[in-house]
Amino acid sequence: MSLAIISPGRDPKEWIDVIKKEKPDLDIQVYPNINNPEKVEAVMVWQHPPGILSEFPNLKLVSSMGAGVDHILTDKEIPSEVPIVRIVDEKLTWSMTNYVVMGVLNFHRQIKRYQKDQKEKVWDMSNPEIPVTIGVMGVGALGGDVIDKLRYMDFEVLGYGFSEKTGLDYPYYSKDRLEEFLNEINVLICLLPLTKDTEDILNKELFEKCNPGTYIINVARGKHLVDEDLIEALDSGHLSGALLDVYRVEPLPKDHPFWAHEKIQFTPHIASVTNPKAAAPQVLENLDRLKEGKELLNLVDREKGY
Amino acid sequence: MSLAIISPGRDPKEWIDVIKKEKPDLDIQVYPNINNPEKVEAVMVWQHPPGILSEFPNLKLVSSMGAGVDHILTDKEIPSEVPIVRIVDEKLTWSMTNYVVMGVLNFHRQIKRYQKDQKEKVWDMSNPEIPVTIGVMGVGALGGDVIDKLRYMDFEVLGYGFSEKTGLDYPYYSKDRLEEFLNEINVLICLLPLTKDTEDILNKELFEKCNPGTYIINVARGKHLVDEDLIEALDSGHLSGALLDVYRVEPLPKDHPFWAHEKIQFTPHIASVTNPKAAAPQVLENLDRLKEGKELLNLVDREKGY
Repeated sequence: MSLAIISPGRDPKEWIDVIKKEKPDLDIQVYPNINNPEKVEAVMVWQHPPGILSEFPNLKLVSSMGAGVDHILTDKEIPSEVPIVRIVDEKLTWSMTNYVVMGVLNFHRQIKRYQKDQKEKVWDMSNPEIPVTIGVMGVGALGGDVIDKLRYMDFEVLGYGFSEKTGLDYPYYSKDRLEEFLNEINVLICLLPLTKDTEDILNKELFEKCNPGTYIINVARGKHLVDEDLIEALDSGHLSGALLDVYRVEPLPKDHPFWAHEKIQFTPHIASVTNPKAAAPQVLENLDRLKEGKELLNLVDREKGY
Repeated sequence: MSLAIISPGRDPKEWIDVIKKEKPDLDIQVYPNINNPEKVEAVMVWQHPPGILSEFPNLKLVSSMGAGVDHILTDKEIPSEVPIVRIVDEKLTWSMTNYVVMGVLNFHRQIKRYQKDQKEKVWDMSNPEIPVTIGVMGVGALGGDVIDKLRYMDFEVLGYGFSEKTGLDYPYYSKDRLEEFLNEINVLICLLPLTKDTEDILNKELFEKCNPGTYIINVARGKHLVDEDLIEALDSGHLSGALLDVYRVEPLPKDHPFWAHEKIQFTPHIASVTNPKAAAPQVLENLDRLKEGKELLNLVDREKGY
């Protein structure tokens, strides 16, 4: 039995250190140096080359090295009986929430306006706050924590998602009530999983349903957003600005218009970065559970896509 | 019986509207148009001309129009038997906390670095967070709320103040333990009342005791901070930056070095602005209590200075 790590372009050293410490006897093979594919029963992957998993005849578990699994589910060659699991990392949740709360507060308290005023030596005390009602698309581990923290800070927060949900202590709008949800808010945070239903969801049609002046925060995946539609809605003045951390192509190409757009605040996919110290033990725990025939943690529903 | 409003340079219209609505029969005189000084039993003041209160022979109550009373206590001619009260406004606390949390998060998540990277089209994912331990000087209504919200967000937060306190659920350092407190933190938030003990407290000597890289947030009063000492500590690289909302002279003079300092983020005293809708009823409540001989709300201890 051997664990393969397949994360091209990313150094897995930190992961290996944690795993070696916890399970010194576990055999680890790191892509592209896989010498005994038939021994591999479990793989940890981040943006693996599609099709490569069919080289492991005894594969029993695919674990994402992060919260998202869209990079795995696009590979249609993974046998349907092999379970896919993902990481739920408190540190990842903490970082994501801090980043999103920062984005909300910078819009609410107009940090860009005061940066401009400072540059121009303008003292203007008028209207120091933009009133906000915040909508969070995606109310899973990440979205749920963002909602919890913002509500504790006494902000008005609403949730939106594709499933029906009951028993939540905040207003929640399911799938078909998108327009109603957008009517209520002027800050829109995208924390949806990337699925066939949510790809391109932040598009012209959605932006047109937003209240004038709505501010967009996308921290989920670049493919949720139609880039040209955002630029058009910002340039027309309908949307007031956007904070973006994820892009359709990463690193963001140098000639992309987002870089120089004055209404866009950019960060380079750093809102939340998986912490191997927290994540690797979850992979090992699932290896144990697999061996013992127990229920796996954070099992992905391939139909739903998360 | 008449209420005088003395807030030179600030339009008291909003205050008058709220008071008229709640107590239509109350006689209000607005400075400088005070026609019957002998009728004035209560005054609402914000930066009144020193000495002017001795023109009211029947004065029984002085109410600040904000949370601070330093602008009142510098006037040594207010008879010692006249009680001074201040405003405790939830909206004011809410705004202050949001502003301070924004400042902490912008430092922790390096918003200035990413603004620079965006301008230069740099994609750099390394070290996305500066680890922070946060120290709050002043743990009253405002400081206490900042601590509560930051702790709910799972930040490590310590308090410092001049009084001895017990039973707090966070580490608290009283007066003589300033050095110990500064040793533990790398974000320093000043929310102290302005008193003879706290004036100029943010000075060279204190900065030298701070950990290298400490970030300063001053949202209390300009007189807490020795401007030259801050600039020196920033220029030497010992402190990493500062977010300032209050200044020794306001508006900040055009030739002041804070405007153009690249390590200083400026706002024009807007962290928290008293909301007449919430504050005026507190003044009226204290007028009723005065009449009925009941204990006043938010009575100021002149010795302590808050």
